Amino acid sequence: MPSSAVERFILIKMQVSTALDHIYLLNKNQNILIIGAGLCGSLLALRMAQRGYAVKLVEKRPDLRKEEQDAGRSINLALSDRGLKGLRLAGVEEKALQLCIPMLGRMIHDKEGNTFLSKYSGRENEYINSISRPGLNMLLLDEAEKMPNVELVFNKGCKSVDLQKASATFKDYVSGGEVSYEGDVILGTDGAGSVVRKSMFNHKKFLFSFSQEWLTHGYKEITIPKAEDGGYRTEKGALHIWPRGEDMLIALPNLDGSFTVTLFLPYSNSDYCFDTLTTPKMVMEYFKKEYPDAVSLMPNLVEEFFNNPTGPLGTIKCSPWSAYGKTLLMGDAAHAIVPFYGQGMNASFEDVVVFDEVLDRFSSEENSSWETIFQEYGKTRKKDTDAIADLAVDNFHEMKEHTASPLFQQKRKLETAFEAEFPQEYFSKYSLVTFNEDITYSEALKKGRAQDKAILNLIADGKITESMDLSKKLDIVKRETIEVLHDDDVISNL
Amino acid sequence: MPSSAVERFILIKMQVSTALDHIYLLNKNQNILIIGAGLCGSLLALRMAQRGYAVKLVEKRPDLRKEEQDAGRSINLALSDRGLKGLRLAGVEEKALQLCIPMLGRMIHDKEGNTFLSKYSGRENEYINSISRPGLNMLLLDEAEKMPNVELVFNKGCKSVDLQKASATFKDYVSGGEVSYEGDVILGTDGAGSVVRKSMFNHKKFLFSFSQEWLTHGYKEITIPKAEDGGYRTEKGALHIWPRGEDMLIALPNLDGSFTVTLFLPYSNSDYCFDTLTTPKMVMEYFKKEYPDAVSLMPNLVEEFFNNPTGPLGTIKCSPWSAYGKTLLMGDAAHAIVPFYGQGMNASFEDVVVFDEVLDRFSSEENSSWETIFQEYGKTRKKDTDAIADLAVDNFHEMKEHTASPLFQQKRKLETAFEAEFPQEYFSKYSLVTFNEDITYSEALKKGRAQDKAILNLIADGKITESMDLSKKLDIVKRETIEVLHDDDVISNL
Repeated sequence: MPSSAVERFILIKMQVSTALDHIYLLNKNQNILIIGAGLCGSLLALRMAQRGYAVKLVEKRPDLRKEEQDAGRSINLALSDRGLKGLRLAGVEEKALQLCIPMLGRMIHDKEGNTFLSKYSGRENEYINSISRPGLNMLLLDEAEKMPNVELVFNKGCKSVDLQKASATFKDYVSGGEVSYEGDVILGTDGAGSVVRKSMFNHKKFLFSFSQEWLTHGYKEITIPKAEDGGYRTEKGALHIWPRGEDMLIALPNLDGSFTVTLFLPYSNSDYCFDTLTTPKMVMEYFKKEYPDAVSLMPNLVEEFFNNPTGPLGTIKCSPWSAYGKTLLMGDAAHAIVPFYGQGMNASFEDVVVFDEVLDRFSSEENSSWETIFQEYGKTRKKDTDAIADLAVDNFHEMKEHTASPLFQQKRKLETAFEAEFPQEYFSKYSLVTFNEDITYSEALKKGRAQDKAILNLIADGKITESMDLSKKLDIVKRETIEVLHDDDVISNL
Repeated sequence: MPSSAVERFILIKMQVSTALDHIYLLNKNQNILIIGAGLCGSLLALRMAQRGYAVKLVEKRPDLRKEEQDAGRSINLALSDRGLKGLRLAGVEEKALQLCIPMLGRMIHDKEGNTFLSKYSGRENEYINSISRPGLNMLLLDEAEKMPNVELVFNKGCKSVDLQKASATFKDYVSGGEVSYEGDVILGTDGAGSVVRKSMFNHKKFLFSFSQEWLTHGYKEITIPKAEDGGYRTEKGALHIWPRGEDMLIALPNLDGSFTVTLFLPYSNSDYCFDTLTTPKMVMEYFKKEYPDAVSLMPNLVEEFFNNPTGPLGTIKCSPWSAYGKTLLMGDAAHAIVPFYGQGMNASFEDVVVFDEVLDRFSSEENSSWETIFQEYGKTRKKDTDAIADLAVDNFHEMKEHTASPLFQQKRKLETAFEAEFPQEYFSKYSLVTFNEDITYSEALKKGRAQDKAILNLIADGKITESMDLSKKLDIVKRETIEVLHDDDVISNL
């Protein structure tokens, strides 16, 4: 090993988090070009640098640590176990937790302003966290920047990618000129509107499966400012939901005492929809009718309604994620999902964990190529990001309609009781997805859906009655779940 | 009514098929530009002309009645009840039936060359037909051309569509120049690679959901020529299948004594796949090993294998199908499906039936606009084309794997017995899809899948035994099917 490489290795070793118990030498002189420095790209850059790669991280927007953020777009997010696992891998979990506000359950608001808390789990330690997107992104950029083998480049927007050469052309938004960068490989983490993915879509030399599915609803963000005494105007430790069948309002707390509220509303073909809410009068009429207790919390409602953009809600899936062993898509670029399971960021951070595990698995193999690694990663990961995409769409319906249904509420009550009484024996679908990062999303989907089907049918058919012992109820649910899984398996095993 | 319009109306009335019992006056002076004169476009042109519209039908290929067809691509197709209903609507069913060869069931060939016939139905009158794609297309073009209000234009390939103006630009493949046509509306029937659809995809002013999903397999056509005595080299009245798990060969008869064989094979990652079958020796080795009884029927196997193109197998879905009340997608342009249910053409012809019904429904309404009609058509039809797309992918697995499974064979045997003994009481999924055009594809999917799940589980769990009376078996299956549907409904009705 030439001395400069040794020196570099030692330097890197000194910089990396103490959470790491070993340092990887594999491919350490390889150059990785990461396109997109959002949450996924910056965590990935940090982790790849920790593994010893030379990383260039290119972002089209200005450095968000220096310039102000876009207003009105996904200000805060739900961070849960899968995401935390990714942050832990890169040694930044503790710092991230300092930015978090725990949310213990869904606080459901009915039309009369009554509220009740539906806990996320019967287990004490299972809750999700509200975290600021720019706050977390800044933390990750700071950590990545500390690495000597990470170069950050801002204000350069990717225009096109040469998939076979792992090179990309960028527009420089400052100079107005163009620049090209090349790596040994490109990792595309440029989000739902990924230009790297579009290069694959438009490349006609291989079959690229692709889907973009839009919901009939859009979203708009509104603010509940902090109270005059600096506190929170409503319960801090919950994710608030105002379910109204077709429409829904949700609110997540911020560290400064405010909440970010998101309205989910159809674009059209509904009494109240973005197409018809065109005057301040109609907006107020709609909110007063549907969300009376929320209106008083949002003093700037009308102004924000008309000033903030309306965002679309889409699911993007594609396959393959890699081309020529040179370019790989990760995060939202590979699998954008709707926000209703609070798993978008978590899934992207889990991508980094899974990719890291694949790199581990191949680090001991002599002839492992990027092509093999990329293919193995896709094979391992794709079924799980498909699963969370589908679960997130399911949850759209669950949140806006089902949370208000008596049958659904009975189910949740029963599940919370199971989890409190038998914490090692019962995990709801929500728990499987959110708090059990050792189970894959696809396993969580299969088991969770079977369980839901079993419980809902048992309650609907009167096979579980109030008077039964809780352990008896659990027995019946377990047996019925096995039955449901068995019936499905006969077909899938044909 | 001005006299020229009256004259034109009389002229049209004289031309249309006697199968029609009334003529529509609605919108008869409107101009409809149909892009794509394949099977769907030419039937649609015929029918719209019969309804009194002025139709311009533009096709990028030369007139296939004058020039030779592409070799090696979907030479014959399965025509069944839904397709026949569309042809009947336009008064051309009888002529089409003259081109048909009935296929009564699947002739399954095992590796030893043993065969057995698995009938499509226990009812005598339920069978599918093999028909030549160019033969049927020519018939439809002939019939459309007889209409005074249809103008056929060939050799003009659509380059782009102005969705808001219902105008399109075409490249003239003869002169090399460009030409634009405008209609009151455009109906895009330009197939799976639709340029009209691409204009919607690239149009950024509305949210366009879109998916293209490729199977891991491709297909290649090979010929079994007619026998030396002019007859058929194997059973004429069946769809032949050589199911081999991952791979499959099928064959459909042609009127001239030949069969068109289609090989379905993975592109890569398999012992035998398109990537590895690169020499005549390997091709022969593969066919001799997997399809020994077929090899002797295909004297030009190797030559055709290397000369004929390898086609991809994809599903395309999109939404909305229309834009601005000016442009509508129909047929494969709106919903391309894989060929494994033999329903691609049938679904496209059924599009014409459904569209015609929507036009009927709105013909009496004063203020009906194309926008209303297009939206109503999409709302009515989309769930059904989604259903047949999914059923066709299911059938890919059924044909290549399940037909060889003992459990599956027991199910088919039982279903055929039900259909023979209780023809008014039992319809298999295949029958519901193929022979029951009064049931929609989505209803057929729901009922058929529930029935399959019920039967497979009953057999696997030993709840149906050989010794039982057939009517007893039917009772059990019916009850279990209701149970399966009920269990699913609890969730969908939440």
